[in-house]
Amino acid sequence: MAKQKEMQLALQMVSGYGGEFSAWRMTGTDPAAYTNMDSYVERAKLAEKGKFQMIFIADTPALPNDLGAQTPMFPMDPMLALLSVARETEKIGLVATLSTTFNYPYNLARQFKALDVISHGRVGWNAVTTSDPSAASNFGAQPLSRKERYAMAHESIQIVQALWGSWEEDAWTLDTKGGKFADMAKIQPINLKGQYYASSGPLPIPPSEQGQPVIFQAGGGYEGLELAGRYASGVYANPYDIASAREHRQALRESAVRFGRNPDDIKMYAGFMFSIGATEEEGLERRRKLMSFNPEEIPSRVSYLGTMVGLRLSVHTVDIDQPLPDDLLERAYASPQDPRSPRALELLKKGLSIRDVLAHGVINYHPVVAGTAVQVADFLEEWFLAGATDGFSVVPDIAYDGVADFVEQVVPILQERGLFHKEYEGKTLRENMGVPYQYGSAETK
Amino acid sequence: MAKQKEMQLALQMVSGYGGEFSAWRMTGTDPAAYTNMDSYVERAKLAEKGKFQMIFIADTPALPNDLGAQTPMFPMDPMLALLSVARETEKIGLVATLSTTFNYPYNLARQFKALDVISHGRVGWNAVTTSDPSAASNFGAQPLSRKERYAMAHESIQIVQALWGSWEEDAWTLDTKGGKFADMAKIQPINLKGQYYASSGPLPIPPSEQGQPVIFQAGGGYEGLELAGRYASGVYANPYDIASAREHRQALRESAVRFGRNPDDIKMYAGFMFSIGATEEEGLERRRKLMSFNPEEIPSRVSYLGTMVGLRLSVHTVDIDQPLPDDLLERAYASPQDPRSPRALELLKKGLSIRDVLAHGVINYHPVVAGTAVQVADFLEEWFLAGATDGFSVVPDIAYDGVADFVEQVVPILQERGLFHKEYEGKTLRENMGVPYQYGSAETK
Repeated sequence: MAKQKEMQLALQMVSGYGGEFSAWRMTGTDPAAYTNMDSYVERAKLAEKGKFQMIFIADTPALPNDLGAQTPMFPMDPMLALLSVARETEKIGLVATLSTTFNYPYNLARQFKALDVISHGRVGWNAVTTSDPSAASNFGAQPLSRKERYAMAHESIQIVQALWGSWEEDAWTLDTKGGKFADMAKIQPINLKGQYYASSGPLPIPPSEQGQPVIFQAGGGYEGLELAGRYASGVYANPYDIASAREHRQALRESAVRFGRNPDDIKMYAGFMFSIGATEEEGLERRRKLMSFNPEEIPSRVSYLGTMVGLRLSVHTVDIDQPLPDDLLERAYASPQDPRSPRALELLKKGLSIRDVLAHGVINYHPVVAGTAVQVADFLEEWFLAGATDGFSVVPDIAYDGVADFVEQVVPILQERGLFHKEYEGKTLRENMGVPYQYGSAETK
Repeated sequence: MAKQKEMQLALQMVSGYGGEFSAWRMTGTDPAAYTNMDSYVERAKLAEKGKFQMIFIADTPALPNDLGAQTPMFPMDPMLALLSVARETEKIGLVATLSTTFNYPYNLARQFKALDVISHGRVGWNAVTTSDPSAASNFGAQPLSRKERYAMAHESIQIVQALWGSWEEDAWTLDTKGGKFADMAKIQPINLKGQYYASSGPLPIPPSEQGQPVIFQAGGGYEGLELAGRYASGVYANPYDIASAREHRQALRESAVRFGRNPDDIKMYAGFMFSIGATEEEGLERRRKLMSFNPEEIPSRVSYLGTMVGLRLSVHTVDIDQPLPDDLLERAYASPQDPRSPRALELLKKGLSIRDVLAHGVINYHPVVAGTAVQVADFLEEWFLAGATDGFSVVPDIAYDGVADFVEQVVPILQERGLFHKEYEGKTLRENMGVPYQYGSAETK
């Protein structure tokens, strides 16, 4: 597999705070950031200063988590957050998730295209299906089968792309002298009809500087690979180690080839978390602090950690501020069920206390580096040079400070090592991702 | 009927240009304003300087008009336009139309509520049904019967309002010390199910400063009156004369009473257009100029004018730069089919040329005043003191210049006469409209 010279970076924004659920309680964080669009704008400006290719806002149309101790996992509204950022930045890409299951294709096409025009061609749509039952019931629906959801997604993306192409590139004439606002011969209906969705068009929106938004995909399985291979220029993935990341990336590239595309035109972004300190101990201390806000979760985490290494662990039988006792350590093994287990076992064997092993984020959703900026850069370099991914979807622990740490400390190291660009290649998201121009539906061209 | 002391003003924004289709061709207008959110922001800032209660953006999810010579009648996206304005203004209300026919209630509730929170309580939703066949086909639907559309609208508004109220007012605790982000006992599902729509909720959004957005209504008939009487605090109406305006306003007030509400809690805004000059002749010249961009439309307008006064008129048989010949004038009468006819006949009898009668806007969608700022103020005063309306939905001829004329010249006259407020009464739209606080669904409280 040809290695690319430079990695790409996406800043994943989680509802105004950080990737850690207790981030809203840290000193210096605005606890009301959830409703404050400035929090998105400020982080995006920092990321733009750090030449991040894009920000990315995930979404599910529901409130799936308990807000007792945790903040929301999704923004109030992803499109309004993106527009707030679009109006106050110039180059950074703007990607949001909207469900193909619970939005009409016309409305999706309209709002993403409008945003793409307003931002001068910086928008991407992460087109996902929604399986969450609480989301389904918000729309008066029963949860749909995986097969149905993906069939809907194919129809939705095809209709959306066709609507995006319903004005020919030169249809908007703006001839004030001749009195011709647009050339109606070049604005045509699309008249697509599927089993779930249909739309006639045209969309009332001219082309953007990049033609139309970039399609992203997230979510695994055969159906996910097919969707990505057909339509996506970017994929958000959540591998936990280099081997599985490389495997997923290879599968994406092969899927693109299967649908007649160049494998280099599909870029994978691996989710990744970090906590940076001047020393490794400082980085870890920051994570201990974050963990300390929710002591009620410690017992279940300890028990979960035990499962990962084949042991029954309980806060009642072990001292979590001590290393794992030798007799237990001898029986411990990395569970093959969980790709995060080898890392957990490695840290336990190093003699770290159970609390510190947990603080290292071994049971987090993404791989975590707690340490210095150099250690973070080393991690990213190792993955990238191993061909594990084209880039990273970076999830800071704490919203603003985490972004600042990465931009000010990690980015210069990556740039120094020749692993990350020093300036944006162009003005549009397509240019900055290095993916080709597309206009209208790929199928119909 | 109790007369109010002061009228209210809404600035109707038509897709970036003005109320006249040729406005985009006038010198000083940005012909690409359609895609430029700054054009909305700049006009809204002017209107806020002029203490307008609100801006209003109409919408239909379709491209119903020919863009050959005309600009679009609706924005690229109303919510993105409103947010652009919300982020750069402080007090002016922000109202947009979104269809109850072609949007899921959950998505409507979410986006309007998010915008209301972001704008600190300045948002209104003009909840309309969509009959346009080209809109229906954009959603793969057949046009629905009036009865069905209104049944859907009732369900949509009830579900949306219930979702808006799904957090109790004090549910968002933000207790960083105690670690309680929100009180989940005060965030409850709504579990509403109708014939067309259903939603479980809750919405992931806390209350705004005004609790929740204000409901507006537009559209006539018995069904429209019922919808307004039940839910609306504001109504956009298009009466052509004082008598029909007063009748409509009275019907709205009676409808509110029928549903157990105070009639003063429903405010009507009558659509109104104007072209201002230093003299009446200058105002008219501005309209001649606007009309001159589309000479191809003159023949059909002349013919239409004839119909209004009971005559067959053709550009081939009359000189449109002359007054109507005496023999025709003697036979002319105001058609009872068209409420605009008396005004057309009056101007013809005054001896104006046919071109100038047309330039006065007698066949426009709204009443038109072409003349001085004092004449515009006189018109508004006459309607308002006659109890014809609570306020006006002002449609400038040319986007920016028209707003500037009104704010700089008409508003001071109205304020001088004690007909318009000199300062915003409060910070929220409800406060500035003088309508009561509401939270959640009216039905369920």
